[in-house]
Amino acid sequence: MAHISLEDLTDRQRYWLITGSVGPRPIGLVTTLNAAGMCNAAPFSAFNYMSEVPALMIIGVDRYGDESHRLGERKDTLANIELHKEFVVNMVDEPILEKAVLCGSDLPAHLSEPESVGFTLEPSTQVAAPRIGEAPIAWECRLFDVIELTGTRSLVLGEIAAMYFRDDLIDLDRMRVHVDRFHPIGRLGGPTYCRSDDRMVVPVPAFDKTGTPRV
Amino acid sequence: MAHISLEDLTDRQRYWLITGSVGPRPIGLVTTLNAAGMCNAAPFSAFNYMSEVPALMIIGVDRYGDESHRLGERKDTLANIELHKEFVVNMVDEPILEKAVLCGSDLPAHLSEPESVGFTLEPSTQVAAPRIGEAPIAWECRLFDVIELTGTRSLVLGEIAAMYFRDDLIDLDRMRVHVDRFHPIGRLGGPTYCRSDDRMVVPVPAFDKTGTPRV
Repeated sequence: MAHISLEDLTDRQRYWLITGSVGPRPIGLVTTLNAAGMCNAAPFSAFNYMSEVPALMIIGVDRYGDESHRLGERKDTLANIELHKEFVVNMVDEPILEKAVLCGSDLPAHLSEPESVGFTLEPSTQVAAPRIGEAPIAWECRLFDVIELTGTRSLVLGEIAAMYFRDDLIDLDRMRVHVDRFHPIGRLGGPTYCRSDDRMVVPVPAFDKTGTPRV
Repeated sequence: MAHISLEDLTDRQRYWLITGSVGPRPIGLVTTLNAAGMCNAAPFSAFNYMSEVPALMIIGVDRYGDESHRLGERKDTLANIELHKEFVVNMVDEPILEKAVLCGSDLPAHLSEPESVGFTLEPSTQVAAPRIGEAPIAWECRLFDVIELTGTRSLVLGEIAAMYFRDDLIDLDRMRVHVDRFHPIGRLGGPTYCRSDDRMVVPVPAFDKTGTPRV
């Protein structure tokens, strides 16, 4: 095994080693409104659910990087969330992956990513930010907290108020997702993504106090 | 689209709908030491990296649920992290998936999961908690913060101090992960997992101030 101390690395090397070694990461395409009411969308893979009570999700938001003409600027998504205290997380599956990734480019703040890439915006119910009509699942979220780590990195905690499911993805009687019909895309290092269709089922056994498996 | 307000759901329904709709989730198998020096291991998929400067990862830790004989108890992982302020995150790929999932059962606190399931424990360099010898990549972490959300849910932020890579997974000259050789497993809803081998590459274009793509 190679052993690498992070203190010996540049910021960029840290980024590549961390994002290359944790995966597959779920992708949340976050839609927000700016002060003028224009809709912004950006994909985040430093993203996951954290808790169901409260129903919390988290995204790690950095500043625009040195690959961007907006180096060091606060991302539109973060500014909009801090302004309106709400947003929508749209799940990314294969049919919308390319457009979702395009939304991750450094379009100027005066351009709407979802409109530029050809997404349909649909009104939400509990928040003002619209959802992406083509997304299979979307979460309406209210800002729970923003944790400022450093001058260049913020953690956004959102509380899920409600969810949209494409009709074929939800069993309303059992109130369960048809996991077998949902095909989200995961992110690996750099521009590499993976499908989630090659699956296996691994149940967790339960034990009693002595460590004997319960049947 | 079906629209579901979370306020209408039981805690268990929330869990199923949230975990069924965000994925694929990376799996961190967390190793810690208890007060007696015994090693505990547990897998978490409410897990991701959050930032590279500082190099932070996060895990959402709930209490043992009603499927366990330890209902409501603080998880051993959390107690151990709060005690020693350090831990190791071992990445999960297909060869170690079944054993990693077994570590997620409710073994009594006096039993060591990694030893019970047959993992090899290897010493770490910067923290006392051992790493799983069979894991392809492992992160040595120091506790950055514990955020108590409610009496039953905590967010653990860890700062990555150093990383182990299996020799074939790291290009030390370029200081980049061989993403093509790393095959992590993702978690979907319930006991469903996915391989990450069916891949595609989708680059992000960069734009100038006018919104024109930069070549």
